[in-house]
Amino acid sequence: MKKINVTIWNEYVHEQETGAVGDWIRTFYPRGIHNALAENLKADDLEITPVSLDMPSQGVPDEVLNNTDVLVWWGHCAHAKVADELVAKIHYRVLHGMGLIVLHSGHLSKIFCKLMGTQCRLRWREVGEKERVWTVDTSHPITFGVPETFVIPHTEMYGEPFNIPDDGKIVFMSWYEGGNVFRSGVTFQRDAGKIFYFSPGHEAYPIYHDENVVKVIGNAIRWAAPVNGVLADRVTFQGDAPEKVYSENPLKDINTAELHQSK
Amino acid sequence: MKKINVTIWNEYVHEQETGAVGDWIRTFYPRGIHNALAENLKADDLEITPVSLDMPSQGVPDEVLNNTDVLVWWGHCAHAKVADELVAKIHYRVLHGMGLIVLHSGHLSKIFCKLMGTQCRLRWREVGEKERVWTVDTSHPITFGVPETFVIPHTEMYGEPFNIPDDGKIVFMSWYEGGNVFRSGVTFQRDAGKIFYFSPGHEAYPIYHDENVVKVIGNAIRWAAPVNGVLADRVTFQGDAPEKVYSENPLKDINTAELHQSK
Amino acid sequence: MKKINVTIWNEYVHEQETGAVGDWIRTFYPRGIHNALAENLKADDLEITPVSLDMPSQGVPDEVLNNTDVLVWWGHCAHAKVADELVAKIHYRVLHGMGLIVLHSGHLSKIFCKLMGTQCRLRWREVGEKERVWTVDTSHPITFGVPETFVIPHTEMYGEPFNIPDDGKIVFMSWYEGGNVFRSGVTFQRDAGKIFYFSPGHEAYPIYHDENVVKVIGNAIRWAAPVNGVLADRVTFQGDAPEKVYSENPLKDINTAELHQSK
Amino acid sequence: MKKINVTIWNEYVHEQETGAVGDWIRTFYPRGIHNALAENLKADDLEITPVSLDMPSQGVPDEVLNNTDVLVWWGHCAHAKVADELVAKIHYRVLHGMGLIVLHSGHLSKIFCKLMGTQCRLRWREVGEKERVWTVDTSHPITFGVPETFVIPHTEMYGEPFNIPDDGKIVFMSWYEGGNVFRSGVTFQRDAGKIFYFSPGHEAYPIYHDENVVKVIGNAIRWAAPVNGVLADRVTFQGDAPEKVYSENPLKDINTAELHQSK
Repeated sequence: MKKINVTIWNEYVHEQETGAVGDWIRTFYPRGIHNALAENLKADDLEITPVSLDMPSQGVPDEVLNNTDVLVWWGHCAHAKVADELVAKIHYRVLHGMGLIVLHSGHLSKIFCKLMGTQCRLRWREVGEKERVWTVDTSHPITFGVPETFVIPHTEMYGEPFNIPDDGKIVFMSWYEGGNVFRSGVTFQRDAGKIFYFSPGHEAYPIYHDENVVKVIGNAIRWAAPVNGVLADRVTFQGDAPEKVYSENPLKDINTAELHQSK
Repeated sequence: MKKINVTIWNEYVHEQETGAVGDWIRTFYPRGIHNALAENLKADDLEITPVSLDMPSQGVPDEVLNNTDVLVWWGHCAHAKVADELVAKIHYRVLHGMGLIVLHSGHLSKIFCKLMGTQCRLRWREVGEKERVWTVDTSHPITFGVPETFVIPHTEMYGEPFNIPDDGKIVFMSWYEGGNVFRSGVTFQRDAGKIFYFSPGHEAYPIYHDENVVKVIGNAIRWAAPVNGVLADRVTFQGDAPEKVYSENPLKDINTAELHQSK
Repeated sequence: MKKINVTIWNEYVHEQETGAVGDWIRTFYPRGIHNALAENLKADDLEITPVSLDMPSQGVPDEVLNNTDVLVWWGHCAHAKVADELVAKIHYRVLHGMGLIVLHSGHLSKIFCKLMGTQCRLRWREVGEKERVWTVDTSHPITFGVPETFVIPHTEMYGEPFNIPDDGKIVFMSWYEGGNVFRSGVTFQRDAGKIFYFSPGHEAYPIYHDENVVKVIGNAIRWAAPVNGVLADRVTFQGDAPEKVYSENPLKDINTAELHQSK
Repeated sequence: MKKINVTIWNEYVHEQETGAVGDWIRTFYPRGIHNALAENLKADDLEITPVSLDMPSQGVPDEVLNNTDVLVWWGHCAHAKVADELVAKIHYRVLHGMGLIVLHSGHLSKIFCKLMGTQCRLRWREVGEKERVWTVDTSHPITFGVPETFVIPHTEMYGEPFNIPDDGKIVFMSWYEGGNVFRSGVTFQRDAGKIFYFSPGHEAYPIYHDENVVKVIGNAIRWAAPVNGVLADRVTFQGDAPEKVYSENPLKDINTAELHQSK
């Protein structure tokens, strides 16, 4: 069986904070969210590589990216530090078929905003309130083995309006104790790439140790993996007409070639 | 009656070319596509301002942009010359409600690609062949007064696959003599902004003098105009819970404020 | 100004019940939901006709239907009593451009199920709990003048999963005190007809006297009204080829006309 | 390996016609389209059962339907003869996860119209012209092994406008010699069921012997098969609130149970 190559990227900043907050976070993510997820997602069909922003090439050198089937992305306070050049490479690869799982505060990451084209903003509040997740599409592979509803005891609230395009297919929706609702699990296709945004997962709570959350992310990885691999670029967009053209070209005596440098 | 403020932007390069091609183009666009469109679209409910890349602030200073209800965009060989800063401002304004009509080779403009998040590539061929446009959604306001099918005698071919997101609502589809098909009129909504892409309109043919093409663009302008004006930015995304939270915050004794600089 | 002809249909059963429930309902809907809505929606641009199942032709004789621009539908316990023939006529007219506003328990009405093609089922619970409605698309005309969030103090709960097609554009989402979430305001287009489903409005609470609920329904009526009137049927789907066919028909010597009776 | 149970339904009328047309059709479909397709689609992972309208229970007794993972449907002149009761059973099973492949003139079958909710009408013409199919979503599993474009030498024309809902995801589009275009391969999801409409396949030409057409239908069967089987019906839609309701029910002293018979 060919394994799915999964790269889990984490900015890995909060987990290294000094002081009380960092101490608290390290009680459940001692080696960072990326390593916790890698461990919790461990399975025979997945080859998982956890990486972080502080590694060479920001954790994603070409040889890693070009071997990744599905990229999982967690970022929050360091979005701006991710190099535009890296974002462009990831964008290109997603459009050619690499799966992308964007977690929680990754809604404002450069790569997610670039793929959506919208503001990707939302309401938020951090009071440690309860979240209740509802499965909206009970037949979707991302929901296999996940109950119709489950609870995350303490979380940051993410609420509507959430600025995303209309073709986001809703897989999960969330209820928050404080009165808000949210499209918490949404899929998109952008060219050949499958994308899943999943909001549960604030750094300050041990949400990536929740059984259902882990199951959703694992399902999403398998769903987003390109069935036939990442596609080669389509280099030829111009060509002869496949059918005979009977009309006479009014420009037949004029050389127009010089006009078309930019395509 | 409040008029709709329409700004028609044209890179205005091909029409100023030296040589045979430029001479040919100037026979029907002597003052450029922007001025031809402005004249052909003239109507009591439209206040039209034609602008071009070679003007100060690339034709779109803040006072023009901030007063524009609908922006019409024509670009081809000079996409790369449009300043990223200007593109960011236009993007912001579209997301807050300004209408955007992207014409023909504008499919590869920075602003369209930024809004779509996809490659926006397509097949193309320039042999002056015939195009036949079909109205797909005969009830859409953009099609009012437009026949179910009409012909453009000579054009550049734009063909599928066209890399755009799945929520593109198809208003027109085109048939080409040489054997290709294309989603030639497609609408999108991105946050508050309405977007219409319309492919007919190659610079080397007098397509913007075609009665049906002009009618479509005019209809699209009225459709894309924001009914209640461009929205102010929503500055507050955080706030107290509207409903009482009964759960106790595990972080209640920890100051987490320092963690949230980036939102 | 041409007025919009609005027909408000109500099965009008609960309001005529004997006993305590009927007495309670009649305190706020003494002449039924249809008449209450007609009064609350009164405006210069609307010509409103309230009708009910117990009227001749089930309240919708041809002369009423053929003059209706937007039909508002409230049904619950009498869905099965609506004649299939009437449903077919309404279906035909919606597909040709008549707007349709389906309220609350109308999610299981014959006409809504026929237009959706899905089960249209949902979770429900009646304990008089609080509902909080959130505006998801703040730029949609149906939301004009409606706050970003508002409360319905007591209601029946309608919750996900809600079995509707994926092209339902979400305008409102609801939060319920008891832990559920719901896509409470969703638009669809089916052929030329615009459809809006809006869940608030249980018969046992005075929800159709709520200022925001009335505003939403009024906005939806104006949004759903066909801009160019209800379309005539397209009678001709067959015709000569608009372009010359060069291929030779292998059936040219065989009369195939007899095969095509059914279209 | 668990095989996919495929039932191929054909009205099987044209192939049994007397006269020149029937004679012609029988040269390539001697035992009907269903048997030709069954033979051409033969594969280790498919258990194929060809059935027809003239068989007991119209070819689809309960024991066949309840064992079908994917149903392929070909009908034309006998749509009206299919029993409403059978259509209701198929509809129920599709909504619970059975895949459905609707071929060619099946666009007006009862089951397709019931699932779409729209008119499903289209333009048509039968002059034996050439059709050129284009792959629009080159990453879709239905397109695996299918070239970006291929030709059907002689066919009936099916053209836009095609009345289907907006969530139809376009996999293929077709060009016709006579000047028309069509969304010739479109997918839908309705509740748990995946649906694929594919237009190539007129009875009067040997199109179901075309290598690419057979490959598309085979791919579509594998794509539409329910991953976890057809779902059991969700019998419980009501239940206690998962979260505590603090509001007091205004109806707490009234028995409302009698009002809710119809759900």
